[in-house]
Formats: sequence, C-alpha cells, structure tokens
Amino acid sequence: MRRQKVQRLLISDPTGILYLTGILLNPMERLCVLAVPQTGECVLHLDKIMEIPQSGITAVRSNQLAQGVAQLAAQIPNGTALCVDDGFPARVLVPLLNLCKGGSVCLAEGCLDAVRACKDPWEQQRMREAAQVADTVMEQAIGFLREGITERQVSDFICRCFREKGCHCSNVFIVAFGANAGDPHHVASETAVLHPGDCVMMDIGCEKAQYWSDLTRTVYYKNVDAAQQHLYNTVLRANCAAEALVRPGVPLRALDAAARSIIEKEGLGAGFTHRLGHFIGLAGHENGSVSEESNQLAREGMIFSIEPGVYLPGKYGARIEDLVLVTTQGFERLNTIDKTMRIVQ
Amino acid sequence: MRRQKVQRLLISDPTGILYLTGILLNPMERLCVLAVPQTGECVLHLDKIMEIPQSGITAVRSNQLAQGVAQLAAQIPNGTALCVDDGFPARVLVPLLNLCKGGSVCLAEGCLDAVRACKDPWEQQRMREAAQVADTVMEQAIGFLREGITERQVSDFICRCFREKGCHCSNVFIVAFGANAGDPHHVASETAVLHPGDCVMMDIGCEKAQYWSDLTRTVYYKNVDAAQQHLYNTVLRANCAAEALVRPGVPLRALDAAARSIIEKEGLGAGFTHRLGHFIGLAGHENGSVSEESNQLAREGMIFSIEPGVYLPGKYGARIEDLVLVTTQGFERLNTIDKTMRIVQ
Repeated sequence: MRRQKVQRLLISDPTGILYLTGILLNPMERLCVLAVPQTGECVLHLDKIMEIPQSGITAVRSNQLAQGVAQLAAQIPNGTALCVDDGFPARVLVPLLNLCKGGSVCLAEGCLDAVRACKDPWEQQRMREAAQVADTVMEQAIGFLREGITERQVSDFICRCFREKGCHCSNVFIVAFGANAGDPHHVASETAVLHPGDCVMMDIGCEKAQYWSDLTRTVYYKNVDAAQQHLYNTVLRANCAAEALVRPGVPLRALDAAARSIIEKEGLGAGFTHRLGHFIGLAGHENGSVSEESNQLAREGMIFSIEPGVYLPGKYGARIEDLVLVTTQGFERLNTIDKTMRIVQ
Repeated sequence: MRRQKVQRLLISDPTGILYLTGILLNPMERLCVLAVPQTGECVLHLDKIMEIPQSGITAVRSNQLAQGVAQLAAQIPNGTALCVDDGFPARVLVPLLNLCKGGSVCLAEGCLDAVRACKDPWEQQRMREAAQVADTVMEQAIGFLREGITERQVSDFICRCFREKGCHCSNVFIVAFGANAGDPHHVASETAVLHPGDCVMMDIGCEKAQYWSDLTRTVYYKNVDAAQQHLYNTVLRANCAAEALVRPGVPLRALDAAARSIIEKEGLGAGFTHRLGHFIGLAGHENGSVSEESNQLAREGMIFSIEPGVYLPGKYGARIEDLVLVTTQGFERLNTIDKTMRIVQ
C-alpha cells in the first residue's frame, strides 16, 4: 500500500476478508466491507444481522445499507482516493462516491492480490491436499465411465465423490463427450450419452478447508482416431513445455507463449481460445492471469493453473490442466495424476 | 426508464440478463454487461470466450477486460449518466468512469427491479412449482429426523432430495437444533446432534427451472416445553397476521409492522432481528424488501417471503417462512405445507 500510495483499501470480497481476518462471511446483498488503512486499525463494516466470531477486529454495525455507507464514508478523510477491490458492488460504491465528494476512485489491484498470489507453507499444504482430492475423484470419475452414461450422471457422481470427502463443490461440472468438448465451457448435459470413440473432457474442482483445486483431464472411450491423438499430444506437449519453464523470475506471459507456439505450429492456434492459466487459492479463480497480457513475473509461492486446450466446434476438443506451485528451484506440480493419453476400456 | 429519466441501463447481474434476454451466462470475473438504451437496441458486451446461443441480441466481443470496457464506453454519449445495477462490479465501473469523463453514476434501482418484482402468470407457475418441491422436501426432511442425527446429515439429506428432483440448491442449509436455533443464520454443523426436546429450524430452498423457492419450518423433536410453545405460537400469529394483510396497495412496511407488533407485545421484539421478508424469483434474494424501511406498496404479481422469527441466543429460536403471491383479491400462499406447531415423534 505504501509503494502504491494507497491510503485505504476497501475490501468487499469474502475471500479477501477471510484472508485478512480469518473471518468467513456470506453477506449476499448486505453491507460487508473491510476498511484497511495504510496505518492503524482495520474496521469491518457490516449489517447488524451478520454474526461474527470473537476476534480482534473492530466491527461497525448498521441497520440499513444507507446508514452503513454513511458510517464508512465518515471514516474516510476528505479527498482520499477510494481504493476498492475488483468485485466491489455498485450498491456500496455509488452512494459512497456521492458522500465522499472530491475523492477519486481506483482499483486496489496489486495490493492484496500480490500478497495473496504467493501462498505461505501452510497454504501450500492446504492446496496440496485439495489437489490430491481432485486427483482421487478424477480417477474415480474415469473409472465410472461406461457406454450409454450421460454427462450429467458423471457430473453428479463427481459431486457425490467430492462431498463424501467433506469438500464443497459446484452442482454441475464441465463434463463433455465427443463434439461437446468442442466448447471449452460446455456444462454436463442430461441428454449427451457416451459412445465408443468419444473424447471425455472433465474439468473438476472442490473447496477443501477453504482452499480450491482445479483439474482437467481428457480421456478417450474405447478407442481414439489419429486426428484426436495428434490433438491430444499437441496439447500435452504445450502443457509440459509451459510447466518446464516455471521458476521464480520467469514472465508469466512466456509460459502462455511457450504453450501457444507449440499449438500454433501444428496449425491449431485458432482453437486455443483462452489464456493458459489463472491464479487459485481461497477462490477458484483469484486475480492474476497466466496470459499474453500478463506483466507479472513468477514468484516463489505462487500457485496457478496451466491448462492449454484446443477446441474444434462441432468436432471435439482437449484440455489438460494441472496446478503448479513456484518453488525456489523451479516448480512443484500439485496434481500427481498421470497426463499421458489414456484410452478407457 | 422514461419516468426515471434513465437514458441507458447497464446490467451485470446474470439473472437480470437472463430476465431481459433469455440468455443464462456465468461470467465469473469476465466482462458481461447488457447495455439497455431507453430507445434502440440492447447490446451484450462480453468476453470472447463466453458462448451464447443464437438469439436476436447483438453481442460485442472483447479479448480483454480493458478492450471490452473501452468498447462499452465508446457507445455511451458524453455526459450521459451511467446507470448500473446493484452488484455492478468495480472492475468494470471504475475504468468506465475514467473513460466517461463528465458523466455521473447512479444506481438503476427501481427500473428493472420494479418490473422483475411482479411475476407474470408463466413465472407465477414456475414459482408455484419450485415452492411445491420445497414443501415436499420439507416433509421428507421432517420424516428423516431421529435421535442422534447431526444437523449436517439432515442438510445433506435435503440436498439429495432436491437434486433427485432435478433442482439446484446450495451445498449446506440452515438446519439448527436446540440452542443453535438462537442464531437466525446458523449453518448445519457436523457435530450438533438431535435430542428430545430440541427445536429443529430448517430453512431450505432450491432453484427449479431457474426460479427459486425458500421455506422455513420449525418443529419440535419428541416434546416441547411451554416457553418454546409460546414463542412458536407468537411467531405463527405474527406470520398469519402479516399474510392476512396482503393485497394490492398495502404498504410493505405495514406487513412488517403487523408481525413485529405481535412479537413485541409478547416482550420478544428484541429477538426479531431481521426484516419480515424479501423478494424472490430468478434469484433467491431479489431486490425489494418487506421491512420497516420499505416505501413500496404491494402490487399484483409480487412474490415475497413472509418470515418472522424470534431468536434467543444460547437458548432456542423459531422462524416460519412461506412465499406469498399478491393477487387481485388478496394473496395466494405458494407453500401449502402446514404451519401449525408440530411435534415429531
């Protein structure tokens, strides 16, 4: 905050508040803002209905949003820039701007995000454990595939597996058979049925003890044709090439470029429609991107996904995703499940 | 928009976009804004990675957020007020304000919310169906109670029941035994075990075909003491008194006042810590409040919860919640499950 001349951060994101205070809140539309001054005490502004555990944090309660915003504004000296997080909601920001006349507003990018990006050893262990659960469930899901099953049945099975292990997860995953894998974000359908020769792309993840996993594998059911084999192995080479470059100091865009150039050399560049990866931790997507536009360098403790993919709409697709941790020497892959091509019998 | 002199609405909320376009998107941190001019064509600004079905809506695609915000800003005439929805994220609003110099910003409250608040007959039927599922699952959950069961087991059972019926729901519900019901938002715990004499407060809901249900019942396991019986019947009287007033034209705050005065007369007012109800539809909580602060009048087609509760921290509590639809003549209760006191054997 000193370096970026930020006087006061206003954090609304529950995972940001959890990171800074240890308090997990689910405010929905209610007021919930942590004010973090450059020096002095943090103050949590929140609706009176929200219960918080005993902690050292000062809480300022409000009966209504308008009252809470006024209390927050009263703590901000005239002319101070409001520095808010990415998802800070207009329902608070707009009345706050009206009350703090003369103040400017900026995004708090870089302050908290840069700190959260580098996981400490305790967090690294949580992330390892979450990744291991995803590995186990992926093996279970691959073992669950059989002819005639629907994508939705596989997705429901994955949910059950995660929940049996005490993890939280979304209600439905990306499970894509055959041509559906031509859409990178296809959501498991109740009507799509597995046939021999189909690719099966599964993008799964869970929250275990507040930390998230994210893992994608693409496998082939019964058999695979030469074109899909070529596509898979291209994506695999791209994945491994990017991974091999990971060490402190490497520009994140160099990882994206390494993967992209391999895919482009095979004439498949138009099918790699997204960035190489994203940061992850207390949220499934944290701020920070492994992409062509990134200006960040890898730093020890960072954890991000490496997930090149190629999608041919109406035909098929493949994505291979692991999470990697930047270590002193290079990297540690948090997912240990095999990623060589697999044909499921 | 004409009445409120709003030239252009900017909608980021996926349920708002679904309501206006029929397109359901899950943008996460990606750009996704529907620009709705007072006259002329709506335009959907979104990240190039997001797939949308064929529709009459013009989509403007962007590779990165900065580019997308610039494209959005270019469509806004100089000096126009930016009118954004409640949850409009700072990651878009802050750079947009920087690009639209001279423009002011306001919340689009009242425009879309007022339209969404009144459900048309097709929506009313969706809401009835979602409410019926909640009624059925509540009966199943009550039937599932037995000595020694944990709150979490009941919550997991409720999840399974909803999902077996093809509905989406959260991973964990408010299931509160005994003293835990003294916290209105207690989340089902893995350690809290059911004992004879406990109250059981269950607040459940699901999304069925995009529309939400929300239902709370408090029942008693094996037996109930006089104090809890008095508290329950006070809450029930409050619920019924508010419900009986529902008809077009009644101030929503009058409903809150009717319930609150009954609870206050019994000396329990301090335990009724929240508003009487909230709007509901494509989102579990829609904008619009049945509270002391509300300035709205009930209109035909509105659907909201009536959910008085009294919570005595460390002791017990009770809440009774139904959804009601404002009809020409009065109201229709969408939940048909009984709400008289129930002792589960």
